[in-house]
Parts: sequence; C-alpha cells; structure tokens
Amino acid sequence: MTTLTNTRIVLAARPQGRPKPSDFRVESVAIGEPGEGELLLQILYLSLDPYMRGRMNAASSYAKPVEIDGVMEGGTVARVVKSRHAGFAEGDIVLSHSGWQSFAVSDGVGLRKLDPAAAPVTTALGVLGMPGFTAYAGLLTIGRPKAGETVVVAAASGAVGSAVGQIARIKGARAVGIAGGAEKCAFVRQELGFDAVVDHRADNFAEQLKAACPEGIDVYFENVGGAVWDAVFPLLNEFARVPVCGLIAQYNIPVDTGADRLPVLMQQVLHRSLTIRGFIQREFVDQRPAFYREMAEWIASGRVRYREDIVDGIANAPQAFLGLLEGKNFGKLIVRVAG
Amino acid sequence: MTTLTNTRIVLAARPQGRPKPSDFRVESVAIGEPGEGELLLQILYLSLDPYMRGRMNAASSYAKPVEIDGVMEGGTVARVVKSRHAGFAEGDIVLSHSGWQSFAVSDGVGLRKLDPAAAPVTTALGVLGMPGFTAYAGLLTIGRPKAGETVVVAAASGAVGSAVGQIARIKGARAVGIAGGAEKCAFVRQELGFDAVVDHRADNFAEQLKAACPEGIDVYFENVGGAVWDAVFPLLNEFARVPVCGLIAQYNIPVDTGADRLPVLMQQVLHRSLTIRGFIQREFVDQRPAFYREMAEWIASGRVRYREDIVDGIANAPQAFLGLLEGKNFGKLIVRVAG
Repeated sequence: MTTLTNTRIVLAARPQGRPKPSDFRVESVAIGEPGEGELLLQILYLSLDPYMRGRMNAASSYAKPVEIDGVMEGGTVARVVKSRHAGFAEGDIVLSHSGWQSFAVSDGVGLRKLDPAAAPVTTALGVLGMPGFTAYAGLLTIGRPKAGETVVVAAASGAVGSAVGQIARIKGARAVGIAGGAEKCAFVRQELGFDAVVDHRADNFAEQLKAACPEGIDVYFENVGGAVWDAVFPLLNEFARVPVCGLIAQYNIPVDTGADRLPVLMQQVLHRSLTIRGFIQREFVDQRPAFYREMAEWIASGRVRYREDIVDGIANAPQAFLGLLEGKNFGKLIVRVAG
Repeated sequence: MTTLTNTRIVLAARPQGRPKPSDFRVESVAIGEPGEGELLLQILYLSLDPYMRGRMNAASSYAKPVEIDGVMEGGTVARVVKSRHAGFAEGDIVLSHSGWQSFAVSDGVGLRKLDPAAAPVTTALGVLGMPGFTAYAGLLTIGRPKAGETVVVAAASGAVGSAVGQIARIKGARAVGIAGGAEKCAFVRQELGFDAVVDHRADNFAEQLKAACPEGIDVYFENVGGAVWDAVFPLLNEFARVPVCGLIAQYNIPVDTGADRLPVLMQQVLHRSLTIRGFIQREFVDQRPAFYREMAEWIASGRVRYREDIVDGIANAPQAFLGLLEGKNFGKLIVRVAG
C-alpha cells in the first residue's frame, strides 16, 4: 500500500486576543499503519465550534488546552479505511474526536457508529450531535421553560441557538432569537419559526429586544455574552434562569476596562431571584439516549429544522474558524475534509 | 381606658450610602382602639435584619420600599392586649410583622401564634424564624451539600450564618465560617462547632481562607458580598453552588468604580459549571412545616445552637441597626420593646 499523507492543522502560537491565521500551521506528514486493536480513519467532516477558541489558551479551563504544535481539537465524522479492531469494519462511518486533520489512527475508544440511512452523517456534528445536545440538556435541565414563558437565545441561526428556540417552542414557550443581519434574521423567523427575532447589529438593538419581549425574559440561554448580555440583563424576570454554555463575544477580549458590573449583577441576582448556571453538555450524559430519540423524532416530523454551512478542504479550516468567531457562518459550520 | 402611646421609628430620609441616625425619626402618637375583627398588639420584641437596609431605598427590589415618614418594617413578637377577633384572645403571644413600634392594630392576617412553653419566643425571630428558615431552605434546596463537601458561610456567628454551618455539619459536610474578630471566631469554632473559622479582618484573610479549604469550596452561602466574595471566588470548585440571600457588604455602596469583574465571573461560571442563585425564603414556603419540625428537633438535641444579642428599648433600634450593618452585633440582633 502507498503511504498516506495526513494533512493536519496544528496550533502554531497562542493567540493574544483575536486569533489570526499565523496562529495555525498546516502540516503534511505520513500517517502510520494501525496496530493490533487499532483502526485507520479517514476524516470526512470536521466540526468547527466556538469552544475551540478556549482550547487555544494556556489558561486553565474545564478542558486541557491544545499544546503548541499539537493538532487542533475537534469532533469529526470519519470512514474506517483499515481495521484491526474487532468492533469496526472497513467502510463503517463513525463519529470520532480526531481533530483538524485528514487521517487518524484510533484505538476505538469513544467512537460511535453512525447509520447514514437514518440521517445525513453531518447531523452527528450538529443538530443530532454535541451542539444539539448542548441546546437540549441546557434548556430542559437548567432553563426549564414553562408554557407561555419567554425564552431568548443569541446566535439563533447557529447550531445551538436554532435548536434552543425550536425546542422552547415545542415546550410551549415563546422563542425570541437574536441574530446578525437581515438574512439570518429572516431565516430564524421564517424557516425556524421563532416568534420574534432581533438583529443585534441594529443601532437600537436593546430597545428592539425589549419590544420583542413585552413580558420580560424567563430563560436566557447564554452563548455569546458581551453586548447581548447587557441588553438582556435588565429584562430578566423574577426567577429567570440563565444556562451559560458559551461566551463567544468575550473569548477574544482578555481584560475589560469598563466600570465594574459585578455588584449590580449580584444585587439583581438577589432582588430577582435569578439563577445563573454554567454547564458543559457532558455533565448530562445520562440524557443522551432521550436526546437522540426525541431529536430524531422532531427532525423527522419537521418540528426541528437546521441549516449547515459547509466549507471545502481541511486547509480552509483556520479561515472558516476565524469567520465563525465573527459570526460570518450561517448555520452549523462544518469542513468537508474528504468524500 | 387610658389612651396608649405608641412609640414608633419612621424613615425620615432615604440614606445616601451608609445610613445615619438622622435618616430615622422617633415619634410618639396615640394608638387607636381595635375595631370589630381587629386586635391590639403590644410589641415585645423587634427583629433587626440586614434586608431592612434595602427597604430604605427607593430603588425597585423584590419588596416595596418603606415610604418616607412610614414606620420601618420588621418582624415582631407581640402580646395580644385587646381582641375583637374570634381567632385570638387577650394574652396570646404571636409572631407578627408590625415594624419598629411599640403597639400595633392588626386584622389578624399573617399572624402566627407562638407557644412560649415550646421555645423562647425570641427564637421565632431567629433560629426558628425567618433567618433560620433562610439558612435551611437556601442551603438544602440550592446549596445541596453532600457529605464530605466544604460549605463556607460568612457572618458565621449571626442568625443565618450560624444555622447554615450547623445544618451543613448535620448533612455531613465540612463547615468553614467567616467572622469578624477573635471573640466571634472563637464562638463559631468552639460553641457552634464549625470545622474551621477565618477572621475576615486578618491582613492575610484570603490566604487563611484558602488554607482552611484545602479541597476548595463546594457551597458558598452568600450573605455578605464585597471582599469576602473576592476571596471565595477563586476557591469555588467545579459544580459549586452559590445561594445568594444577602449582600450586606455592598448595601451601602451605590457604585463601584473598580475594574469590571463581570467578564471573569461569567467565564468562570462557564469553565467551572458554577451555579449562582438568588433567593428569598418565602419562595420555599412549602418547606416551612419540615423546617419547624426539623429545626426544633436539632435545637432540642443540641445539634443546633444559637446566640441572641438583645438591645433594650425601641428608641435604640436605629443605633443597633447601624451597628448591625457594620457587624457590631454578636448573634441574632433583637430589640426588647416591652415585657
């Protein structure tokens, strides 16, 4: 067999503030043969997600940072091209966490077989994968929307936000989305069926948000932070719940030099009996079977719709990722690596 | 019958920052006779609590502010001295919310009869009353300490803090108290049986707190805010819970001009999956029967101890309250109004 060449993207430097192309490096290296009990994966699709920005920092987080010169981390859909593992056969399609590269050797731990007949395999990276589960678990376990309540989510055309709003509606709540630009707003309102949508680029964004939430906000699913938080905060109702799964707007800002908003936050947490709760989806692993079952039903019945933004070629992953941090993607951002 | 004179303390002015004696005014007025269905109460004891500082502000809160020239609000233990209400007889001792005055006419709504033989009636204002219930409901419902976890509470010799630490120990957790000065610290450690205590006046307070929590903090029961929060925050473990029932250290500070701590707070909420949850005890009203039963048992068996700091005379209430805001009381602060 000819030696395969693995194209991989490694972390060249830790970004100061906003990452730039030179923080990444594309490498071509020979990929080894799988040993006994191992298998060789060809990556078909790579998921790009906001959490990856955190992995580029040395600072302690809930997960280990990517090492300098290490392959960037990420969820992937892959085809088994060679197997010396009893549990997998050549041609199997699996969900893996192989990172930003075109091939990987795996010992099979943590792989999940996918059925391409059941759903497009890319959904395992989005609506039927980690982002969809983040929406499902965070909204239902922490947000607990009741019928008639108002649920607000930003990045509403994205992988997590689109699922949050649609699940909220299934539970009888009113879904208000926040998105950037007329095209995304139209998609959120018309295609995803949110009850209202507000463009965060509008000059009077805070006013528009207030008008879109005449009875205040009962659940704010926090995945952006920054200016959106400032507009949401005054509208939170007594007993409002704020699941926090991401802060994309502040990932690139090392230090804020404005006035201290903490005392007012805590005062209002007290006065309005607010709940603010950070989470990572893996905390709720026991809910995954219910998620796969329910979400597949909702997709099949058309109650949950989704959009994917697919970029071609692993070498384009860094540029696509930089665009993601600026909201340039439109739907779940995925890199087609092969196939 | 001779006309009775009611001595009452009214709000003379809304404080700017720290309240001062001139924000209060003592008045003597004739008290009317109870009408049909009413009763006349003589106040025996008045509870002084940190939440009253919030009621002095015009700013919106979870409760209505005291009006200018209105009687200061507060929980009281009173004796029925005249009754034209079928449910109450002369001589009955009741828990009421009659405020800072020596007499009050009531229609009976919201009164709770006390049995002086079951427990000293002053406990209805402290360990067996609102402060004790705040500790019980907030710690058990939001804090949910597990055996072996570390629970930290400030104002640990006070009405709420002392109950928090002792209930935490009953649940098998390790209780670390924060108090001001050697005398209070000794009381918390030796009389209340906390596992450790730290003096927040010490120069190296943050270091001492860290040393007292070698495995980090799983539950921080927040009732003070300010510098204590800054020392606690870095020690919070993954999945830590922070019930917020008060912020006495920041009640008097209208605006903080330091660096913005909000982004770091939210980042750590996310990275450490923290829960921050404000509450008022009345949210958990359905737990009150269990509280009365359990707390009475714990007091009877010596597992929960308490200390009261009793000041004589309604006219001394303002000065005692100003002292409370500075931590000058030692135990649950109560004014003996009569009897």
